[in-house]
Amino acid sequence: MNKILTFGEIIMRLSPPGHRTMKQSHEMEFFFGGTEFNVAASLATLGCVVKHVSCVSDDFVGESAMAFVKSFGIDTTFITKNEHPLGLYFLEVGSSVRASRISYNRLNGSFANIEAGKTEWKKALEDCSYFHWTGISPGISESAYESLKEGLHTAREMGIEVTTDPAYRSNLWKYGRSGNDVLKELVGYSTIFIGGVNEINEILGTSFSQDQNGFLEACSELQQQIPSIHKIFDKIRIGITASSQQTQGRALVNGKYVETELLEVNHVVDRIGTGDAFAAGLIYGLQHFDDEKALNFANAACAIKHTILGDINYCSAEDILEVIAGNSGGRIKR
Amino acid sequence: MNKILTFGEIIMRLSPPGHRTMKQSHEMEFFFGGTEFNVAASLATLGCVVKHVSCVSDDFVGESAMAFVKSFGIDTTFITKNEHPLGLYFLEVGSSVRASRISYNRLNGSFANIEAGKTEWKKALEDCSYFHWTGISPGISESAYESLKEGLHTAREMGIEVTTDPAYRSNLWKYGRSGNDVLKELVGYSTIFIGGVNEINEILGTSFSQDQNGFLEACSELQQQIPSIHKIFDKIRIGITASSQQTQGRALVNGKYVETELLEVNHVVDRIGTGDAFAAGLIYGLQHFDDEKALNFANAACAIKHTILGDINYCSAEDILEVIAGNSGGRIKR
Amino acid sequence: MNKILTFGEIIMRLSPPGHRTMKQSHEMEFFFGGTEFNVAASLATLGCVVKHVSCVSDDFVGESAMAFVKSFGIDTTFITKNEHPLGLYFLEVGSSVRASRISYNRLNGSFANIEAGKTEWKKALEDCSYFHWTGISPGISESAYESLKEGLHTAREMGIEVTTDPAYRSNLWKYGRSGNDVLKELVGYSTIFIGGVNEINEILGTSFSQDQNGFLEACSELQQQIPSIHKIFDKIRIGITASSQQTQGRALVNGKYVETELLEVNHVVDRIGTGDAFAAGLIYGLQHFDDEKALNFANAACAIKHTILGDINYCSAEDILEVIAGNSGGRIKR
Amino acid sequence: MNKILTFGEIIMRLSPPGHRTMKQSHEMEFFFGGTEFNVAASLATLGCVVKHVSCVSDDFVGESAMAFVKSFGIDTTFITKNEHPLGLYFLEVGSSVRASRISYNRLNGSFANIEAGKTEWKKALEDCSYFHWTGISPGISESAYESLKEGLHTAREMGIEVTTDPAYRSNLWKYGRSGNDVLKELVGYSTIFIGGVNEINEILGTSFSQDQNGFLEACSELQQQIPSIHKIFDKIRIGITASSQQTQGRALVNGKYVETELLEVNHVVDRIGTGDAFAAGLIYGLQHFDDEKALNFANAACAIKHTILGDINYCSAEDILEVIAGNSGGRIKR
Amino acid sequence: MNKILTFGEIIMRLSPPGHRTMKQSHEMEFFFGGTEFNVAASLATLGCVVKHVSCVSDDFVGESAMAFVKSFGIDTTFITKNEHPLGLYFLEVGSSVRASRISYNRLNGSFANIEAGKTEWKKALEDCSYFHWTGISPGISESAYESLKEGLHTAREMGIEVTTDPAYRSNLWKYGRSGNDVLKELVGYSTIFIGGVNEINEILGTSFSQDQNGFLEACSELQQQIPSIHKIFDKIRIGITASSQQTQGRALVNGKYVETELLEVNHVVDRIGTGDAFAAGLIYGLQHFDDEKALNFANAACAIKHTILGDINYCSAEDILEVIAGNSGGRIKR
Amino acid sequence: MNKILTFGEIIMRLSPPGHRTMKQSHEMEFFFGGTEFNVAASLATLGCVVKHVSCVSDDFVGESAMAFVKSFGIDTTFITKNEHPLGLYFLEVGSSVRASRISYNRLNGSFANIEAGKTEWKKALEDCSYFHWTGISPGISESAYESLKEGLHTAREMGIEVTTDPAYRSNLWKYGRSGNDVLKELVGYSTIFIGGVNEINEILGTSFSQDQNGFLEACSELQQQIPSIHKIFDKIRIGITASSQQTQGRALVNGKYVETELLEVNHVVDRIGTGDAFAAGLIYGLQHFDDEKALNFANAACAIKHTILGDINYCSAEDILEVIAGNSGGRIKR
Repeated sequence: MNKILTFGEIIMRLSPPGHRTMKQSHEMEFFFGGTEFNVAASLATLGCVVKHVSCVSDDFVGESAMAFVKSFGIDTTFITKNEHPLGLYFLEVGSSVRASRISYNRLNGSFANIEAGKTEWKKALEDCSYFHWTGISPGISESAYESLKEGLHTAREMGIEVTTDPAYRSNLWKYGRSGNDVLKELVGYSTIFIGGVNEINEILGTSFSQDQNGFLEACSELQQQIPSIHKIFDKIRIGITASSQQTQGRALVNGKYVETELLEVNHVVDRIGTGDAFAAGLIYGLQHFDDEKALNFANAACAIKHTILGDINYCSAEDILEVIAGNSGGRIKR
Repeated sequence: MNKILTFGEIIMRLSPPGHRTMKQSHEMEFFFGGTEFNVAASLATLGCVVKHVSCVSDDFVGESAMAFVKSFGIDTTFITKNEHPLGLYFLEVGSSVRASRISYNRLNGSFANIEAGKTEWKKALEDCSYFHWTGISPGISESAYESLKEGLHTAREMGIEVTTDPAYRSNLWKYGRSGNDVLKELVGYSTIFIGGVNEINEILGTSFSQDQNGFLEACSELQQQIPSIHKIFDKIRIGITASSQQTQGRALVNGKYVETELLEVNHVVDRIGTGDAFAAGLIYGLQHFDDEKALNFANAACAIKHTILGDINYCSAEDILEVIAGNSGGRIKR
Repeated sequence: MNKILTFGEIIMRLSPPGHRTMKQSHEMEFFFGGTEFNVAASLATLGCVVKHVSCVSDDFVGESAMAFVKSFGIDTTFITKNEHPLGLYFLEVGSSVRASRISYNRLNGSFANIEAGKTEWKKALEDCSYFHWTGISPGISESAYESLKEGLHTAREMGIEVTTDPAYRSNLWKYGRSGNDVLKELVGYSTIFIGGVNEINEILGTSFSQDQNGFLEACSELQQQIPSIHKIFDKIRIGITASSQQTQGRALVNGKYVETELLEVNHVVDRIGTGDAFAAGLIYGLQHFDDEKALNFANAACAIKHTILGDINYCSAEDILEVIAGNSGGRIKR
Repeated sequence: MNKILTFGEIIMRLSPPGHRTMKQSHEMEFFFGGTEFNVAASLATLGCVVKHVSCVSDDFVGESAMAFVKSFGIDTTFITKNEHPLGLYFLEVGSSVRASRISYNRLNGSFANIEAGKTEWKKALEDCSYFHWTGISPGISESAYESLKEGLHTAREMGIEVTTDPAYRSNLWKYGRSGNDVLKELVGYSTIFIGGVNEINEILGTSFSQDQNGFLEACSELQQQIPSIHKIFDKIRIGITASSQQTQGRALVNGKYVETELLEVNHVVDRIGTGDAFAAGLIYGLQHFDDEKALNFANAACAIKHTILGDINYCSAEDILEVIAGNSGGRIKR
Repeated sequence: MNKILTFGEIIMRLSPPGHRTMKQSHEMEFFFGGTEFNVAASLATLGCVVKHVSCVSDDFVGESAMAFVKSFGIDTTFITKNEHPLGLYFLEVGSSVRASRISYNRLNGSFANIEAGKTEWKKALEDCSYFHWTGISPGISESAYESLKEGLHTAREMGIEVTTDPAYRSNLWKYGRSGNDVLKELVGYSTIFIGGVNEINEILGTSFSQDQNGFLEACSELQQQIPSIHKIFDKIRIGITASSQQTQGRALVNGKYVETELLEVNHVVDRIGTGDAFAAGLIYGLQHFDDEKALNFANAACAIKHTILGDINYCSAEDILEVIAGNSGGRIKR
Repeated sequence: MNKILTFGEIIMRLSPPGHRTMKQSHEMEFFFGGTEFNVAASLATLGCVVKHVSCVSDDFVGESAMAFVKSFGIDTTFITKNEHPLGLYFLEVGSSVRASRISYNRLNGSFANIEAGKTEWKKALEDCSYFHWTGISPGISESAYESLKEGLHTAREMGIEVTTDPAYRSNLWKYGRSGNDVLKELVGYSTIFIGGVNEINEILGTSFSQDQNGFLEACSELQQQIPSIHKIFDKIRIGITASSQQTQGRALVNGKYVETELLEVNHVVDRIGTGDAFAAGLIYGLQHFDDEKALNFANAACAIKHTILGDINYCSAEDILEVIAGNSGGRIKR
């Protein structure tokens, strides 16, 4: 009854080791990830029962991705295969004053070609209490957008909590639809909003400011326009340099503003997937704690993810709770 | 006056190290290659002056590919960039009774989207005595096909020798044209045919046999139907296992049949690009030796390439001549 | 109804890369394996539904082993955890005239300390048609022996087919029981014997010869003394050198002697787990083919495993059938 | 006359590269170490003549450990071999807010099974002026405890200075004896105490505070109860995060309190063995400098060890003296 | 007309991976570099047309170096080969309080044996507006000194701007000449001085102080003694630790003092070549910006080079301008 | 009384991993070796007490070499240090029909600059029964030649058995002396000749043939001209390809001709140092067996060395005896 469903691309990341540029390398480290799948994998690591809906390539690359998904114990019943190549991206990892760089190869991949109308959403959402989606998936292709909308529709019918991180990415949305319009439409199916002033401004076309007041006004406007949203959780990540980052959470829950302390991570091992760690931490927190502790748990999950290579937060609830407790990692656990 | 022009995709190969399967790996070795580019790079290594026509991605991946091309001293004036991702493929390296496996991601890449009508072929072919193409490029996309045809047309007008390895690959030709028809059309612009009974049967729709008689009949038929072809060189690679291979060359030149001895390579380091090493060896040989020695040089180049990792034959003419001389590699060169 | 249960240690293998000796190394490649688990993983790769019974360490090492087991989709419900370290072994990989060397650290590990009387065998064997065990497990510790005997007893009661590879290893059996006695006792619960003259001689204390006659006499004696055995399949692996091996299968099924052709593998990538690949191939074969084809399938699985790094046969049924068909791996699958 | 004897396990450390978790790895870096051996190796690197007493496995793992010990020029005459596996541990290296994790496999290893009564301690201690031991060894097994006690007894008889770092580790002491009792007994054989309030509280069952006063009171109590202790040196390591550490030394020598400045290390390369680097620096310092400079040398050795991978401080006396001089490492030594 | 010529050794750097000491390694990462070549490569990366004059070994090591030079599109016409081995150095990379260490093997290498009187300097300097040299080259050997002097003489005749970083290194100058005398002589051929108080004091035998006043007095003295110098640019690199560095530029241009802000880099990836990145940034800046912006560009180039592995600054002008703009690298460029 | 002394360079080998060319690599594996040191290390591995005379660089490279020497337990008392760089060579590893290539950098290194007249040869040769030298050392430099001659002179005076492998290498002997003359002079100090027709022809200027007759005539001539030679052992290595080699030994001992069987190694892991493995096997054999068994032991040592990476034979006497016994490595030693 308490299962969680996620929907999204399983993407391969290829990155020269260390802080090398691609020109200096003859090899790549690779990882499987994908924003919603990262949430799924982190939730499974935390002990939740998770199902993931996706489409991978019907070759040894897709098989490897599947083995990786299964290694978390995630239910793969609703992952299909097609003849298109698995989506991937290249990452050059920056350091200090040098930014990281990404180059994508996903818009003609297997997930972009997921077939709408084929997922048995009723069955997929069976026993689920949460459905999580982000703004990446509907930006990839028309069929990804349509598939997602089917799922959201079903979730609403089934009364399932829908969490969304409706990030707008300008390097997507090449297939014809307006990102802002689509995101507004799909947020309309959602109940918990994981995002802040930026996301609200993009969706509503508003221009609220980043300070606390601006955040509260933006939340108010969002809830007025999209009344299904009953909780709003915002993650703030401040990039001092590519090697030093700060994270903080704030939220409007039940009309009450709460915020976490500012956590600092220095030296960053990996910045990718930290937002997804926040989302997973939040969903886990909402299932196990009150809203404020859920926010703290999400923020600590986000912070500790910066110390993990790859897209996925491999930390246990115990690890995350230690960050909240202020145990900074200086002791060795024997 | 003696420059060589090649046209084709620069593709990235990604492969788990050693004989690992992808499921067993967290890293990939990567190499740049591409069938015609392999010929270009091998010719440049042999000391020829080479220009290459292609299109790469306008990002750090494409820049890395460009640096690699330049490292051979190849003229990159006619390589353009566009916003599509660089083509790539994954390779799992087999061994003994286990075959190698490849999965491609190239049909929507930068080369597939090369813009026809934009290459200044007259300028590109200036000072060239040879233009080399293969059956891979026109199978990738309509615009690759059209670009190539422009080049071939110009080459014919300029009286340049055109070598072709018109391999037909069933996993290409997805954009609407018939591979056999296109290949026959484009071979019509060519003067030196690098291929044998298989290639002739595919192009002409014939069914000649693989033995010497069949080869001679096939050559005869080819020259009757496509009179521009004045020399035919065939490479025979016999795969005993994934680790053990044999190579042999045969040819019909000036109405005369010649063949090389059978060379054996055990243990194979890398099978990819051995046909391209043959083509490069042949073109170099035709520029420096008589036809029969050129064939021997091509066959030895093909054999020694099996001992080189990656797509490209890094061997010098001296290395290749030692193989012909029967020096089997047992001594260390100090 | 057609599930398969396996019981045995999940062991970590640590090995210097390539053919390095440990003195020459600063790093180890590691793999999870274990003779019965290898069978489970290979069967899961072939598409079977598999459950594995074992015990791992309750720490991050055990968690990693669990993630690996799950990546095959194997049911881990019956794998417990305790406070003892996961068993492991070190392997120096030989080559040509130099033999490989193994050093074990398993006799005080988590599996050796598996608690007898705690596995719900009835539930574990539910829906199973096969239960596979080997002579390794009962040689590790008294509790492993007792746990296995419980399972075998239950399997007999439930009328499940019991396959056994009752290999006797002299470096086990340190806990007080006689290996030969125990193996004879436990083979008494089994129905399909995977072994030959050596195994029979060890169990029965006989001294039959290795030739066909000796094999048939040994089989006859075995079936007389242990009538529950209704099929006997023998794998013959001939080690020419550490780099070159031959495999052949022979069997006595329904009173009929059958044997496969001799398959040769050169150059061997990994010898470990080739017997387990045979067993998995056999069980799969018995479920899908007649006995003779099952034997051929087992032998081909054994041969192709020599080309795969690690303990487990990652090949598909299609790959194995190609070896039977005589396709020796010389072609690249694109 | 000025040789140094150490006694303790030689243990193998296995660690995924970088900050990877084990689940993300296919390989381990390995190192040999062990708390007392680390002191031996560091002293040998500093130019001292050192003998080490231990027991390793009689296989290629033990041979590798022996080659490593010899590479420092350490006298291995008193290292025996037995049939048990070499002790080892797995380490996942943390970063920033994520703590490092260790999993041990040592309690049934070769050192745990060292045979008491077999070491010729008189001969081993010949020409030695120092004998160093820690609280780890007697916590491993009864025979390790007994062996150590024999050595301590002999050292006392021979009038040799005995240094001890009597760390209490709760994950040891599984064989039946009370750690606190044993440590108090063995400290009774010692003359120089390397430890502070924590260690004294554990041994004496007291509860002194960490401040300077508490330290002085604890020292006073210790010397009253164990009069053979004539010098007490305390290392303070403050873990800000897993990546940032501070070290400081304080001491009571000849009734005088001295302390060093606080040294900061950011970014930590390796935290393991930093206490051993302190002990080695101290012993070296006591042989070459006055007590206060010895303390400074020990603290600087501790600090610079944080920049060295593995368990052992590979730095020379010159390197360490530069840290004391405040040369922070910003210049390249050409 | 706007080409740039550089002259100097192409040297191989060999370094244990990460922060390992050589004793802990079985492998080395290698890079090609060399102080003036680093400037050439950085300028080529920034889009300049560059020629480099040097001499490499006539073997596969020299060929690899040549391929690397060509990969930047640098003109190699004036690089010769001889039978001496390519110069090289070993680097142990320090961290925090541990300094990096270098050991050279260059004084009998191919560049040290460059043949004076053989370079066609008129042709080499054709179309060039800048000639860059440093104090390293004339310190290596008599013939390197003589070759350089020929070039400088020709440059003066041709009215080409000559930039110099006249660093004095005490581990050079083993062939008989006084470094200070030679540097003073060669600076006499130069027009733009890249150096500060240290370099001026060394050349002139003065003892000006490091503060702004001392800098201005030193500049004044330098311009009085060597009137050809019309601009002086100084890079200040402050090494906090081996992991944390600060960079700042100051200059006297047209009688005006300018300085940049202080840039901080933490965590340093690689310190080698940061001065060369400054020089390249400066030359590029002088060709594209006013003097003050050129200084800022040089300083930012120096800072960002600390984040790049190897000797060469792979950053684009865009990357460098972002550092000046204060974009600290915290965002990922997608 | 039974110690063995060796004299020669300790050289570093740097090699791209696998069969990569240097152009394809960013890293090198490195090993320490050197023809006479290889003999020393192999003898120490076999259990002999060995001293080595040499000279290494006085830096961290030389220190690493020293740690490696010590790891074998070899006495380093007579290894000095100077300010010259350690000698080294680069190796590209060939395969099958591609030969391996070496590029040396040793002629100005620390060993080439060993100071003659400084080694206390009497003390070094104390308790020694064997002194081993090769034709490499006197070819490096005048001072290496002189040092060696001093040692040989002392050995003769002390009546110590002198073994020599007087290989002539044309890439040495650059310092002015004639290799053939020097080798003849120094062989005059020797008692056991490890070499065959090639070596004898080079030293004596004769032209005996390679067959058995030629060998016997050559031996006869050698013993007539240099009567101190009382035994002659010849190793024959036949390189089929770079991957496949055969070895055989023959000898004239006490006027009797003996030869071993032909051993085959396929697939060769490393060809370097196989001759040194022969010499070490021979010296060990002469100390432990009769001459014929010593020859067999030497030949088997030579064969098994082909399976070991690096310059040194890490195999035990037991491993070598198994090769003689015909156990081809096909079984795993557990």
